[in-house]
Amino acid sequence: MTTQRRANIIGLGLIGGSVGLALRERGWCVHGDDSDQTRVDRALKLGVLDEQGLCEQAEITFVATPVLTIADQVKRALSETSGIVTDVGSVKGAIAAAITDPRFVAGHPMAGSELEGLDGADPTMFTGAVWVLTPTSDTADSTFAAMAAIAAELGADVVALTPDRHDQVVAVVSHVPHLAAATLMGLASERGEEHAALLRLAAGGFRDMTRIASGNPGIWLDICAENREAILSGLDGLIDGLRRMREIVRDDDRAALYERLRRAREARANLPVRGTHPNELAEVRIPIPDRPGAAAEVFTLAAELGVNITSFEVVHSVEGNRGVAIVLIDVHDTELFRGGLLARGFHPAVQRLD
Amino acid sequence: MTTQRRANIIGLGLIGGSVGLALRERGWCVHGDDSDQTRVDRALKLGVLDEQGLCEQAEITFVATPVLTIADQVKRALSETSGIVTDVGSVKGAIAAAITDPRFVAGHPMAGSELEGLDGADPTMFTGAVWVLTPTSDTADSTFAAMAAIAAELGADVVALTPDRHDQVVAVVSHVPHLAAATLMGLASERGEEHAALLRLAAGGFRDMTRIASGNPGIWLDICAENREAILSGLDGLIDGLRRMREIVRDDDRAALYERLRRAREARANLPVRGTHPNELAEVRIPIPDRPGAAAEVFTLAAELGVNITSFEVVHSVEGNRGVAIVLIDVHDTELFRGGLLARGFHPAVQRLD
Repeated sequence: MTTQRRANIIGLGLIGGSVGLALRERGWCVHGDDSDQTRVDRALKLGVLDEQGLCEQAEITFVATPVLTIADQVKRALSETSGIVTDVGSVKGAIAAAITDPRFVAGHPMAGSELEGLDGADPTMFTGAVWVLTPTSDTADSTFAAMAAIAAELGADVVALTPDRHDQVVAVVSHVPHLAAATLMGLASERGEEHAALLRLAAGGFRDMTRIASGNPGIWLDICAENREAILSGLDGLIDGLRRMREIVRDDDRAALYERLRRAREARANLPVRGTHPNELAEVRIPIPDRPGAAAEVFTLAAELGVNITSFEVVHSVEGNRGVAIVLIDVHDTELFRGGLLARGFHPAVQRLD
Repeated sequence: MTTQRRANIIGLGLIGGSVGLALRERGWCVHGDDSDQTRVDRALKLGVLDEQGLCEQAEITFVATPVLTIADQVKRALSETSGIVTDVGSVKGAIAAAITDPRFVAGHPMAGSELEGLDGADPTMFTGAVWVLTPTSDTADSTFAAMAAIAAELGADVVALTPDRHDQVVAVVSHVPHLAAATLMGLASERGEEHAALLRLAAGGFRDMTRIASGNPGIWLDICAENREAILSGLDGLIDGLRRMREIVRDDDRAALYERLRRAREARANLPVRGTHPNELAEVRIPIPDRPGAAAEVFTLAAELGVNITSFEVVHSVEGNRGVAIVLIDVHDTELFRGGLLARGFHPAVQRLD
């Protein structure tokens, strides 16, 4: 007989609600809380939660509150529960620096929806999405491994990054594009002011580009405050690039324009496709050495090499506390991954699955 | 017994092919030509054309060749055929200035596809799309009216604009967004260079924003050359807006940031929805005075007022050559449209359709 697995969720919005639905679909018992009692009631009604309040023995607590309140709620979860704790905020530097508990690993599921709040919650939201974890040297290996396995259970591809690297990357692929979309929408709206109806000329491409400008403005205030340096750097890069583009158009430098557009097209075509899973898998078993961050390092290395980890678990060997990470990857990536692991002092064993 | 209507298409790419398919679905006989014989053969095979070559008596010739060859092909069509001539290029100032024949009206269907070339042709491409016409004082009323009626027959909403105004608007809603998407994609690609796999973090919003960067680079060289001034002005506006955004983020000016994002969201939400047609229609009959450009003026006014013309035809009164434009609009817009028409010296009669 197995005991039912238990999780807590603090903050019952779009992401917290989706985590709750996804866990319950997989047989978990989900406890949860929110500063707004009407949201708790709605969550119980929608089947997001089994019970109100935090369960002390839950194996994991997800903190899914607004960015600026995450640190306090993580501290609360660490003091009121005995399991591991993670968060789902969009910026990771500050939270990873603020919390140095071995039971905590910061995270960021790269998923969302045009819908807002609990009523937009969707149990399939994480299927094929990237779930970034940003372990530090304070994070226990077992914490990282447990959280990575749960994210994989929810259907996500886990990518481990340092908190700073995460913040730089999301500035470029999420925060700056959002501000650019809003600026572009503002420009069109301003220039279309005399003839608002002329915005009828805005065809599919423009609608695609400005779609993210329809997001909730409130959450962006905290994101811009928390990730200021990386966003400023990204905006500088975009402004410089547009200035160069302006010169190229002004000078009718067709060769340079063609080259820029060609490279952009090529890069766009090479964006990894979300949620595709390989048909042929190989299993890699990696004994995890007894040093901090070793399990996370396996993931970080996979991300650096572009190797997609399809499934991840840590089992404990009979001899003692040392764990063995068992990961599934695309069979074509085995040599690349094995080479990287060996170079970092791991001793992987690869077995092809048929 | 009615004679089958005939059209010519010069240039058998994505748009030319789609016009052919759409016309043939509606019973037209379509003749056509291309500098590349393999494309002509393919068009005959795909059912885009009935016959190769231009038909002298065709009521209309569509010139759908690359931007820089349009003027020559329009001249050829005017000399080799007796019907009206239009083009489908993305920039209108130069062509409208170059051709002063009363049988020509320049146009731009705001439709496209991620597919390229003839094999991407789709007879439904213009359904609900905006088809801009840019008549000048040289364009005969009958030319404009005939072309507007054909565009409406293909399912498009016709919007009449001056050539310059068209070019300014498309710079902001199409050309600058395209260059911005390419710049953003270039920035992400460059910053992700060490860790290409980190582009896996690019979630839906980024993919949406950069989708247009996957277009064919070649066609953009001509567009940037032809619409240089408006594109430079649009790029200046975007760069200024991003600089201001940078100041706001740097200074953590939450009120200003919120206001910008809120306005962008509102403008995005107010983008006219493509292809929705009103349920309740009113018919407006407008005698067309005997002065150049009067029929086009009806359309330009509708665009300025935000009135969507669902259907358009010109009938000739028994007394002589003066035509009467019969347009269908949303019943809620009748008073607005009537006011505008009266102010411009027209004498509309409105009848609600039940």
